[in-house]
Amino acid sequence: MAKERKLTRLSELGEFNLIDHLTGDVTHKNKSTHFGIGDDAAVLDYGNNYSLVTNDVFLEGVHFNLMYFPLQHLGYKSVVANLSDIYAMNGNPRQIVVSLALSSKFSMEAVDELYKGVKRACEYYNVDLVGGDITSSLTGLAISITAIGEVEKSKVVYRSTAQPNDVIVVTGDVGGAYMGMQLLEREKEVFKASQNAQPELEGYDYILGRQLKPEARGDVINALDNAGVIPTSMIDISDGLASEIIHITNDSQAGCKLFESKIPIHDKTREIAKEMNYETTIAALHGGDDYELMFTVSLNDYEHIKDIEGLNAVGHILSDAEEVNLVSDDGATVPIRAQGWNTADQEE
Amino acid sequence: MAKERKLTRLSELGEFNLIDHLTGDVTHKNKSTHFGIGDDAAVLDYGNNYSLVTNDVFLEGVHFNLMYFPLQHLGYKSVVANLSDIYAMNGNPRQIVVSLALSSKFSMEAVDELYKGVKRACEYYNVDLVGGDITSSLTGLAISITAIGEVEKSKVVYRSTAQPNDVIVVTGDVGGAYMGMQLLEREKEVFKASQNAQPELEGYDYILGRQLKPEARGDVINALDNAGVIPTSMIDISDGLASEIIHITNDSQAGCKLFESKIPIHDKTREIAKEMNYETTIAALHGGDDYELMFTVSLNDYEHIKDIEGLNAVGHILSDAEEVNLVSDDGATVPIRAQGWNTADQEE
Repeated sequence: MAKERKLTRLSELGEFNLIDHLTGDVTHKNKSTHFGIGDDAAVLDYGNNYSLVTNDVFLEGVHFNLMYFPLQHLGYKSVVANLSDIYAMNGNPRQIVVSLALSSKFSMEAVDELYKGVKRACEYYNVDLVGGDITSSLTGLAISITAIGEVEKSKVVYRSTAQPNDVIVVTGDVGGAYMGMQLLEREKEVFKASQNAQPELEGYDYILGRQLKPEARGDVINALDNAGVIPTSMIDISDGLASEIIHITNDSQAGCKLFESKIPIHDKTREIAKEMNYETTIAALHGGDDYELMFTVSLNDYEHIKDIEGLNAVGHILSDAEEVNLVSDDGATVPIRAQGWNTADQEE
Repeated sequence: MAKERKLTRLSELGEFNLIDHLTGDVTHKNKSTHFGIGDDAAVLDYGNNYSLVTNDVFLEGVHFNLMYFPLQHLGYKSVVANLSDIYAMNGNPRQIVVSLALSSKFSMEAVDELYKGVKRACEYYNVDLVGGDITSSLTGLAISITAIGEVEKSKVVYRSTAQPNDVIVVTGDVGGAYMGMQLLEREKEVFKASQNAQPELEGYDYILGRQLKPEARGDVINALDNAGVIPTSMIDISDGLASEIIHITNDSQAGCKLFESKIPIHDKTREIAKEMNYETTIAALHGGDDYELMFTVSLNDYEHIKDIEGLNAVGHILSDAEEVNLVSDDGATVPIRAQGWNTADQEE
């Protein structure tokens, strides 16, 4: 016991002291942040652009497992997941509101770690932390983040406006975050079986980074803007390629043809998938958590952006809404189906 | 079993069908709502006013007990709690984003009930439901609501700007919501002891209404605006009078003198408090959940609003920040102390 670092129980601090402690060093970078933390609501000033608002909730045991997910990474990733939704509207994130529910197992130092990640993400993406709420929880950690962004009115991009013959583009590579999760799950089982076993994570940095520290593709939004190109439709890849292309085609009343051979999958993802006997295409289609972007552009506009690093044309939009297909490596045409969270609950 | 109404398991629907099912009938009332549910983020258009953003999370077992809290009321109250934060900035709420985490014990019909309450609140307060997220939960229900509002730049009111000699005003009456909770807790214990016992809730409508269906005081914000009065500071009463006046005096670097005899407490609240052996003043100071407003106004402005129904002058602001006191009914001057959620966790 004497060797344990003394941790500060949250009950010693109280809610308001904890908020002060966590947010005392928060400063603002955006002109649109008129007033942040410290009142009933944040006050934002958005001149004549559109404001964008999105919210996500992350729960311990459902969205993350603290046994292998470091709190600092968790804070960072929770912010990234929300910013990604703002970029997916072709906007720029400006503020976030972070609410936490904490059970008594968390010390102040643990919450500090989480906030360190939140603040690093704010720093990296030039986003202001402007408010939130902290409450107690009976059963672990819940994180709710609201992101607010802005976009010039003429530049906002929806999911529902893809046009026939548009090129479908996927940024970066996909499936890696999912394989990173599988790897962490495998090592957790090994650890449970023998508490002396050291996790074998060497050589897997890329895959682990995709899961533990994904980045939102603000750089792509910037590059498109610099090229003078506005996508015809866009969505972020949080649930996997299949789910996202179904959103775009359904909402646009269109179809699509994706080519399995064109799906960008990193060599490291292929390696670990092979080692663990997973189909890489399944990981890419249904894995999610990559926080890349999928967008559509006209053929003409595609010519202007095709040399931008990290953009991959994976197929095109069809006028027939019944045709939402993948052309597999062996030449077969397969309908694309979604997998939502329902599969986890499914009992049949 | 044959008598049971057939309920729809959420797993039969899937996430996206559930969202469509819940939000298919959502329409918009506010010009500033450019685009709502159905994309990565909502798109808002706020001309030249300030935007206000606030978020709260409510957890089963911490903030509500479904054994006695009907889901429809829970949905309504969760919205009200957030709108109250927007009114407390002297703003008008325009949009909400509602995220839910649900365990498998919830049926679609249960979620419908919750949303019925959310939608009734949107209807009553002229607020647009513009987005959200639904995820699964291992341990019950979590509700995260983000409210967005607007206010003319010259009219925004903070907590930190109370001035010496200002009159402190409390709207409606306080302590009732807390006594309503005590009553519901008492009946729960009786029910647990004997499952045949019928809850004795007759004659307690007022108190139960304060707990189960509070309203946010947009009417007061309107009335003040009509009278041409802008409070010098304002906060909503979610944690109890004591906590709120401490926020105002601390943030304004001022003190206060509140009079116990002036605290507005309903006769029904006094009755049940007497019956249950509670101090009504303690319920008013530390009970919370009333969603009334506390604000300060100059003596001059107070003259213009003192005939508005439901406004109660309860004391005044002092220049000495060390003096945050209550003058009790027996003439004693007692320092006001806060009680946050830390008391629930406190082990000593």
